[in-house]
Amino acid sequence: MSRKYTIGIDYVTDSVRSRVVNTKTGEEVAGAVFEYPRWRKGLYCDPAKNRFRQHPLDYLEGLEVTIKEALRMAPEGVAQQVAGISVDTTGSAPVAVDERGTPLALTDGFRENPNAMFVLWKDHTAVREADEINALAKKWNTDFTMYEGGIYSSEWFWAKILHVLREDAGVLRSAYSWVEHCDWVPAVLTGNTHPKTLKRSRCAAGHKAMWHEAFGGLPDEEFLVALDPLLEGLRERLYKDTFTCDVAAGTLTPEWAQKLGLPEGVVVGVGAFDAHLGALGAGIEPYHLSKVMGTSTCDMLVAPLDEINDRLVGGICGQVDGSILPGMMGLEAGQSAFGDVYAWFRRLLEWPLHTLLAETTLVDENTRRKLTDEVSSKIIARLSEEAEKIPVGESGITALDWLNGRRTPDANQNLKGAITGLTLASEAPAIFRALVEATAFGSKAINDRFIEEGVRIDGVIARGGVAKKSPFVMQIVADVLNMPIKVARSEQACALGSAMAAAVASGIYATTGEAQVKMGGGIESEYHPIPENAEKYARLYEEYRKLGTFAEFGLLP
Amino acid sequence: MSRKYTIGIDYVTDSVRSRVVNTKTGEEVAGAVFEYPRWRKGLYCDPAKNRFRQHPLDYLEGLEVTIKEALRMAPEGVAQQVAGISVDTTGSAPVAVDERGTPLALTDGFRENPNAMFVLWKDHTAVREADEINALAKKWNTDFTMYEGGIYSSEWFWAKILHVLREDAGVLRSAYSWVEHCDWVPAVLTGNTHPKTLKRSRCAAGHKAMWHEAFGGLPDEEFLVALDPLLEGLRERLYKDTFTCDVAAGTLTPEWAQKLGLPEGVVVGVGAFDAHLGALGAGIEPYHLSKVMGTSTCDMLVAPLDEINDRLVGGICGQVDGSILPGMMGLEAGQSAFGDVYAWFRRLLEWPLHTLLAETTLVDENTRRKLTDEVSSKIIARLSEEAEKIPVGESGITALDWLNGRRTPDANQNLKGAITGLTLASEAPAIFRALVEATAFGSKAINDRFIEEGVRIDGVIARGGVAKKSPFVMQIVADVLNMPIKVARSEQACALGSAMAAAVASGIYATTGEAQVKMGGGIESEYHPIPENAEKYARLYEEYRKLGTFAEFGLLP
Repeated sequence: MSRKYTIGIDYVTDSVRSRVVNTKTGEEVAGAVFEYPRWRKGLYCDPAKNRFRQHPLDYLEGLEVTIKEALRMAPEGVAQQVAGISVDTTGSAPVAVDERGTPLALTDGFRENPNAMFVLWKDHTAVREADEINALAKKWNTDFTMYEGGIYSSEWFWAKILHVLREDAGVLRSAYSWVEHCDWVPAVLTGNTHPKTLKRSRCAAGHKAMWHEAFGGLPDEEFLVALDPLLEGLRERLYKDTFTCDVAAGTLTPEWAQKLGLPEGVVVGVGAFDAHLGALGAGIEPYHLSKVMGTSTCDMLVAPLDEINDRLVGGICGQVDGSILPGMMGLEAGQSAFGDVYAWFRRLLEWPLHTLLAETTLVDENTRRKLTDEVSSKIIARLSEEAEKIPVGESGITALDWLNGRRTPDANQNLKGAITGLTLASEAPAIFRALVEATAFGSKAINDRFIEEGVRIDGVIARGGVAKKSPFVMQIVADVLNMPIKVARSEQACALGSAMAAAVASGIYATTGEAQVKMGGGIESEYHPIPENAEKYARLYEEYRKLGTFAEFGLLP
Repeated sequence: MSRKYTIGIDYVTDSVRSRVVNTKTGEEVAGAVFEYPRWRKGLYCDPAKNRFRQHPLDYLEGLEVTIKEALRMAPEGVAQQVAGISVDTTGSAPVAVDERGTPLALTDGFRENPNAMFVLWKDHTAVREADEINALAKKWNTDFTMYEGGIYSSEWFWAKILHVLREDAGVLRSAYSWVEHCDWVPAVLTGNTHPKTLKRSRCAAGHKAMWHEAFGGLPDEEFLVALDPLLEGLRERLYKDTFTCDVAAGTLTPEWAQKLGLPEGVVVGVGAFDAHLGALGAGIEPYHLSKVMGTSTCDMLVAPLDEINDRLVGGICGQVDGSILPGMMGLEAGQSAFGDVYAWFRRLLEWPLHTLLAETTLVDENTRRKLTDEVSSKIIARLSEEAEKIPVGESGITALDWLNGRRTPDANQNLKGAITGLTLASEAPAIFRALVEATAFGSKAINDRFIEEGVRIDGVIARGGVAKKSPFVMQIVADVLNMPIKVARSEQACALGSAMAAAVASGIYATTGEAQVKMGGGIESEYHPIPENAEKYARLYEEYRKLGTFAEFGLLP
């Protein structure tokens, strides 16, 4: 009996999901979710300092529990037909490891030390280190940030490593090397954890660690030592080669096979970032922008290598050969705040509830809470409903969506949000509409940049919370982009993408394209631009650009 | 026994107040208020069309009721010692009258016709007519708007007259002339209602009707006919001379004396606008800005005639010899929205209450209403409390206060409000603080304009709702102006000012200055600038100016 199932494992910020998928149909036959217990308790984190760390045991326990639970729930015989497992994670999330590749937090003396744990994507403790990397990169003969959008982030590999090494002498003494979360899990499953030989993911390396073929791998030793002598020798103990998600990292160790109840010979694929395997799962194809629309956006586009060549697409977040799809140039962009802008406005309107209604003695505490929850939970929906009735351009309000700075095009964290054209008659729905339009204009600015740089966009494939839940927002985005937007059906595009990658790594399919054809979840809905709105938005976009230009030149206070 | 009492009558938007004042002490010995019954019912108004009209009977009934009620409540014998009565009203509020000076709404065929009633200050039906006046004035050899700030408003005399005459053929046929509310009441009391002989107020004529000595009175007949042939001959049936508030319009008619229970010979002063007599009542003195701070501001300054001479102070609302104090140049400016900006933000934050809380079934309707009222009523106070804790400049938010356009300096109704420097961490109190600072910057722009034009400002005397109720706002205004602000004690500065005017018109005092010394209410509090805040605001004001400059040049969307 041939093996026809794969397992996709998707590590998100607060939990891990495992999905068992039929590779012939793409159907999910079973799945399980595990919330990280230490994370839930808030251990090792300090939100006031933007310090967010995760313990490797949260990952390991979740791996075992969810795979076993999913297999237990799957029809009989499925476990024996599993051909492969692939993993996606958030990132960059590096951890300090010893010579055997064991995270320090799993070794004596470091079990409760946050600096010995994975540094989560949203940890911002390394702002200073990122600044130093940027300053040095701009002076260096080679700008190692060039393939990562030209601005290194505090959320990324080197900044985090440098910050931890400076802060923690114990970790500095004991850290042999560093491993990304997405690389460590396959390494553990295959028993190949040695930092110099475990298979490293192309997307983590290329988008976060300044790895590029043109540099011969990671940045020069001289550059790293100039950054801080603490880094001396580390480059040698990291990696030179990187791999795409269609490559096998190895096979499951007998111990893990036994523990999970899986047969021998299960292939484990090279890991990848969640956004990239999610794009695969949601049906990314060349010259289609795969747009994850949630609190922020992550916008991915793939194009044939020979059509991009050595050309550097300016002002986006990064371009890495094979990072999204093997054999394609993976281009990444994104908006720093999207749904977060709407959430900000909701919080603003909630202010009287949380301060004044919270203090009333007219009703009991329980009723107060219920009232607050009820009103809060309906704000966005009602704003959308009312805002939808306002004709395009009628309110005269223009907004800038940069309330969390701007990621692309042309990253600039100093930019801020603005609202103009306010009158005494400006009401909440009209302001909300302007904010939604601003986020859509932010999307258009990214599309335009790709196109200006010679990378055409044939269509948009959206997923994420906003794409699924807000027809109001999606229609405006379609109108502003003047381009149809397909919304991917799969609720679990990342886990599905991982299962697809596993199907390729294990040889069921020759290419990710084949896997997509057989396993793809398809489209659940499509938004078509309304021509008259698109025309009006083309004019309003110029207003947005004008306002944005003032802000960029530091002319807006 | 010499007469030592006067009666000040203050017509406000929704009611009239009469105050009996002891002219030796300024003490109010009795007072009464009368709410206009027709106005309260919403008769003759159409808010959706910005049409606001008031029936002359509301005024007449209120006059009689409040004077009689105040006298009834006053100690015995006071009525027989009343020397004079003066009246202030809102304006411009013209009414069409017949040949005897009777408002058409008091004559058969017009009793229920809004076009035959007083056109209230806030009636904006004459926007088109104001535009036409401005267009013609700019082409004419003499710009008749020059002493009224250079921009004629839809809220003023000629625009309203032209609008009504165009709209209502019946009124056009029957209107012999037009009279301002502040001129009509003294005319009625003195029995001299004929349009060509009744005494017209200098402030209504000079600030709203383009009357000026240099023009030989009202604008040329040619100008008026060029505006619309409908106006032909009207100039002749209006007036040439105007009078300041220290002049007697006449004495009370025997009929009115009997009706009110007053002795013979009571002098009735020439009427004036509320803001001007309020400035008198609140202690205006040369080179002190008398600032009425409420929903909007009215800023008045008087300076000796020989120090201003023929000089035109640019960009303010008007300058009229004797309009505020007899014998002084009265200069007027103001902000189109002040407290209205805060009310706008309160309404914005109330949106979830009025839409979502209003629909909850968790509590009964009565409780819902009480909760909404309770929360609404506390929003501004709590915002102020929280905003006060935010250090100057910390939030990085800048706002423009032009949510209702800009009145001064340099009137521009097309300008709008804006808020910049927003981040995902920007909360309601910080935005509120920025809005308060914006209104204070708007005040500073007016002060600066006076000073640039060579009219010094030695101090600020404030009154109005915001001045009385918001120490938070007042301290910021003092810091931004970098100037101490005195708050006038009198709650009824306008009625007190009218009583002072009556004391001069009836000969108790020779000048308004003397009346102020004896009758003035004094100062209730004083705000002194905090030097370190003033210094920071000097810098932040430049940011406000920068943002404002972009807006003015049409560069902000």
